[in-house]
Amino acid sequence: MLKIGIVGATGYTGEELVKILSRHSGVEVLSLSAIIDKPTKISEVFPSLAGKCDIICKELDIEEVCGLSDLVFLALPHTVSMQFAPKFLKEKKRVIDLSADYRLPAKVYKEWYAKEHMDKAGLDSAVYGLPEVYRKDIKKADLIANPGCYPTSIILAGLPLVKEGVVELDDIIADSKSGVTGAGRKAAIPLIFSEVNENLKAYKIDTHQHKPEISQELSKAAGKGLDVVFTPHLIPMNRGILSTLYFKLKKKMTAKDIAKLYKRQYKNEPFVKISKGLPQIKDVVNTNYCEIGVSVSGNRAIIVSCIDNLLKGAAGQAVQNMNIMCGFKEAEGLIS
Amino acid sequence: MLKIGIVGATGYTGEELVKILSRHSGVEVLSLSAIIDKPTKISEVFPSLAGKCDIICKELDIEEVCGLSDLVFLALPHTVSMQFAPKFLKEKKRVIDLSADYRLPAKVYKEWYAKEHMDKAGLDSAVYGLPEVYRKDIKKADLIANPGCYPTSIILAGLPLVKEGVVELDDIIADSKSGVTGAGRKAAIPLIFSEVNENLKAYKIDTHQHKPEISQELSKAAGKGLDVVFTPHLIPMNRGILSTLYFKLKKKMTAKDIAKLYKRQYKNEPFVKISKGLPQIKDVVNTNYCEIGVSVSGNRAIIVSCIDNLLKGAAGQAVQNMNIMCGFKEAEGLIS
Amino acid sequence: MLKIGIVGATGYTGEELVKILSRHSGVEVLSLSAIIDKPTKISEVFPSLAGKCDIICKELDIEEVCGLSDLVFLALPHTVSMQFAPKFLKEKKRVIDLSADYRLPAKVYKEWYAKEHMDKAGLDSAVYGLPEVYRKDIKKADLIANPGCYPTSIILAGLPLVKEGVVELDDIIADSKSGVTGAGRKAAIPLIFSEVNENLKAYKIDTHQHKPEISQELSKAAGKGLDVVFTPHLIPMNRGILSTLYFKLKKKMTAKDIAKLYKRQYKNEPFVKISKGLPQIKDVVNTNYCEIGVSVSGNRAIIVSCIDNLLKGAAGQAVQNMNIMCGFKEAEGLIS
Amino acid sequence: MLKIGIVGATGYTGEELVKILSRHSGVEVLSLSAIIDKPTKISEVFPSLAGKCDIICKELDIEEVCGLSDLVFLALPHTVSMQFAPKFLKEKKRVIDLSADYRLPAKVYKEWYAKEHMDKAGLDSAVYGLPEVYRKDIKKADLIANPGCYPTSIILAGLPLVKEGVVELDDIIADSKSGVTGAGRKAAIPLIFSEVNENLKAYKIDTHQHKPEISQELSKAAGKGLDVVFTPHLIPMNRGILSTLYFKLKKKMTAKDIAKLYKRQYKNEPFVKISKGLPQIKDVVNTNYCEIGVSVSGNRAIIVSCIDNLLKGAAGQAVQNMNIMCGFKEAEGLIS
Repeated sequence: MLKIGIVGATGYTGEELVKILSRHSGVEVLSLSAIIDKPTKISEVFPSLAGKCDIICKELDIEEVCGLSDLVFLALPHTVSMQFAPKFLKEKKRVIDLSADYRLPAKVYKEWYAKEHMDKAGLDSAVYGLPEVYRKDIKKADLIANPGCYPTSIILAGLPLVKEGVVELDDIIADSKSGVTGAGRKAAIPLIFSEVNENLKAYKIDTHQHKPEISQELSKAAGKGLDVVFTPHLIPMNRGILSTLYFKLKKKMTAKDIAKLYKRQYKNEPFVKISKGLPQIKDVVNTNYCEIGVSVSGNRAIIVSCIDNLLKGAAGQAVQNMNIMCGFKEAEGLIS
Repeated sequence: MLKIGIVGATGYTGEELVKILSRHSGVEVLSLSAIIDKPTKISEVFPSLAGKCDIICKELDIEEVCGLSDLVFLALPHTVSMQFAPKFLKEKKRVIDLSADYRLPAKVYKEWYAKEHMDKAGLDSAVYGLPEVYRKDIKKADLIANPGCYPTSIILAGLPLVKEGVVELDDIIADSKSGVTGAGRKAAIPLIFSEVNENLKAYKIDTHQHKPEISQELSKAAGKGLDVVFTPHLIPMNRGILSTLYFKLKKKMTAKDIAKLYKRQYKNEPFVKISKGLPQIKDVVNTNYCEIGVSVSGNRAIIVSCIDNLLKGAAGQAVQNMNIMCGFKEAEGLIS
Repeated sequence: MLKIGIVGATGYTGEELVKILSRHSGVEVLSLSAIIDKPTKISEVFPSLAGKCDIICKELDIEEVCGLSDLVFLALPHTVSMQFAPKFLKEKKRVIDLSADYRLPAKVYKEWYAKEHMDKAGLDSAVYGLPEVYRKDIKKADLIANPGCYPTSIILAGLPLVKEGVVELDDIIADSKSGVTGAGRKAAIPLIFSEVNENLKAYKIDTHQHKPEISQELSKAAGKGLDVVFTPHLIPMNRGILSTLYFKLKKKMTAKDIAKLYKRQYKNEPFVKISKGLPQIKDVVNTNYCEIGVSVSGNRAIIVSCIDNLLKGAAGQAVQNMNIMCGFKEAEGLIS
Repeated sequence: MLKIGIVGATGYTGEELVKILSRHSGVEVLSLSAIIDKPTKISEVFPSLAGKCDIICKELDIEEVCGLSDLVFLALPHTVSMQFAPKFLKEKKRVIDLSADYRLPAKVYKEWYAKEHMDKAGLDSAVYGLPEVYRKDIKKADLIANPGCYPTSIILAGLPLVKEGVVELDDIIADSKSGVTGAGRKAAIPLIFSEVNENLKAYKIDTHQHKPEISQELSKAAGKGLDVVFTPHLIPMNRGILSTLYFKLKKKMTAKDIAKLYKRQYKNEPFVKISKGLPQIKDVVNTNYCEIGVSVSGNRAIIVSCIDNLLKGAAGQAVQNMNIMCGFKEAEGLIS
């Protein structure tokens, strides 16, 4: 059995990691840590874990975690992960980081996260954990930069069109709608129920920290630089991201033509589905699937993708990466 | 006192009409009709109207309504309004129709509503009731085609840019998010709570019946034909529409430059506000305001507008039109 | 025009006070204060107040407030109000306190709010602002202790039965369900959307600080001491309290008999309604009404009451008290 | 492998049955039927089942179902199940009925469901499927009457106190709050989002069809007849029932004393948990647990229980019964 440690176990993604790994046949979770008043059973922090995991969650002690883990998940805020990842790598532990710390070059990182990167070596070795693009590299990786939730929903939705070169690269728009767990489990007035419920807003238009990650990956797929217009919106629901992408087609294509591209691109992917009609959030919530629907209006392709932001957008994809790294069945633990 | 009749009083827009008109100093609501089992006090149909209106709502009797009304609001489904409007006009009643029946030329109407238009004469005389554009004509009108909720939110958000000719007309995208009351008060599985709550979807991409209305009005503002890409989304909240519009700028402009255009265009408008930052639905719910926020990303202008779909998007705008037609203060009854 | 000051204007009840008073024909709001970074238009703090009030909200300066006010509303947390009320009373300002500070005898207050009372004189002179019981005293009062939201919903629902002596006094149960605004506008993890939405819980069973207030007022009505069993629950909605009360009848009574008692008790009350069937929250939200439904099961009376916790449960009732104190029409400003 | 058929597969409980059984190691679902336009993959009816079950759902053909099933789940409306159950029993299939048709004596059934019972023989042989009470009988049963959602939450919460004889039997109150899926997946105006959201109501006070089932089972536990006062409420959330029960204690007991009774009663139960504090819906949603919290106020015990109405309140409990009937591990398939 592969021994697992989770650092940052008391957030929403931590909860999901424990839930998934506790049903995984090839691993055992032996170490849970977080900033916590006193050692507490994780099933008391999250009673929904009853019968699944009773391990005690305690303050982080790197040495202890190393003793109990072959592989460590870091479910930490950005700028924090890069302080711990090197310590685990040094002890020959494989690391899957769910923060943004290893997704961007140091220079870009500093621009968008307002902090000098503290682990350039790690950054050089890190693999961007999007299996649909980097499966080969993930197999051999010791450090995974697990993708952001918005980027996962947008990159998978845009990849086939930019890769095939059938759309204008200077004219890509991503209008995304996210549930509230995307903001994490923290106390802030804009997140309290009576401010979010019966409300709806756009925020950080074209200044959201996920933007460079999106443009970077779609640029790589296109083989040349491109810049996506990205508008995130906050929706009064707990889970899920729906992204609506707008592309300008270079030549006339039907929805059927486009669907064909998508089916070809993803035909061997266990967690990408092309919808017959349009996908809905409730079709993917509590699953690791990204579901994509395609349509055409005049010379525009309109692509809609849905994911569960805590699963394919975070914990689920992290475990998918672990499965690839460690030679497990890729879907192990991910279909409940 | 102006005598008012409301036909279709038991829907959500009917409820709002009664609420607004009951606080209006210059009118008295004397007739309420709807498809209803037996004559019933409207304050029993909608207990929230207690203390505001106790009139009895009964089955439609055109003669009776005419006897009790100088002006009639039709809060009816499309294809139904055009059967009744002519009868009221014939009796010299002024009519404000909240359906889509008088918003489009007969030919376009038939394409999108799959029905031959039954009142071409009315259609010729009808004025599109968007005060920010047609105030002069509204003053003299006998028949008002009250705009749709999506179109109101999109046309007001797009007008200044297309009118000033600073954006490409072949590259306009409107991504709209609507609360559930927009679908009306009808029994259908896709509308039940457990299907809509914790869910989110795009629907009728580029085939929504409000699309021609949007393109028609923005074309008029531009002085030449244009076609908007329109994607509606259903959001788990009761009220409100947030539309996010994407335009390609012909020449470099800052958000400040654009805000200036908007402030100039709407400087005398009592119900359009330009936000300092970005508007939110909760800022406009239960008000007749359209609030607009502007931003720029590269060569794109991104405009966000918020309205209450039942007020500025329906009943509130209808009363604003009545106020203009009848010489009342334009905001009378509309600021509670 | 009566000059009004509001202290604590940036909370939910402050927002509602401004909304109501801005439509009141006999008053003008001249002073708004709160703990706030810099002087800010209240219509920027709450854009929903656009067109209603543009006064600037600033840090509290008691002298300044006194100069601008004949009557002051205190929308402050308990234990804070009692520090300011005496200062306003000393300057001959009438005070309506929305906190719990003047609702209980000093001894009981200390037990339940864990703080020595700091204004015994004020406490002696304060009148409990429940118009349905204390209208006469309210007329002459200088200091009003505005009732809590739970107590208003429970006292009005229980009063007729205990007053008439038809129920056992040692067997009264109040099971209350409240929306989230009842907890105020503060940052705390248990209040964030993703913790409250799709969730439901009972809390502070029989230890909630509103319990003594409820028992005290029903005891007065009964003419002898009684103790209510009170269980509050948190519901995933913004506004409203529904309380379900259970009483044991001393002798057989029908729902009709009981309804008669309630109608007699409240026949002259402008803001209490006896439902034909059972009341719902949506019937009273955004109104100042308390709606009550009565039913019988065997030897038990089951009474259901609904209020808007921010209106009849707070700001609306406070203005109703002001109207009584100052000789305005009791409903002035309260029916929008 | 045990062969399974599900009749009524397109409702919410049908969806949950497929989800649970598809992860069960000892069964294979071979037949799905429902009232459906044309044969359709269940994973198209419920895309959330992708990767779990791809069987085609078709119109009911009893012979075909019998050919493909050893055990049949009936997820049908009451009055419908009793028309089909005998046909499956006749073919020696074991049947688990999720409707109310086999829970009550014919006479009581007729009173509450307004229909003459059509399968008295089945009724005589049926076992009430509450494992915590009837495990022994369930083992040997061919027909299970799976308990209602409200009854499960109330009976489990009340059982220890009435069984131990420590409470007055003429003074039991159950105030229950249910999510909307409890009403099933049907089109009706009172169930549409804009009527339920931001609303809350009590309904069918003491006339709800689950009342006799609750009183019957608690009477059996008490060893003498008792009648529970039962008030259901509709809550704006998808899933979960929280019941708050009020009992009068015969003699003084502390919460600790009571907790001891509950722990003893349920010490070997895999799916009943006694909370340290008070349970919340989010602790049990998507699980088969019933979580119970106990407290005391004066001479009253106040018991709060939480379940997922679609799992422990329906499909989960049905599979728990199947596991007992067929000798599987009782939790098999039920901990995801």
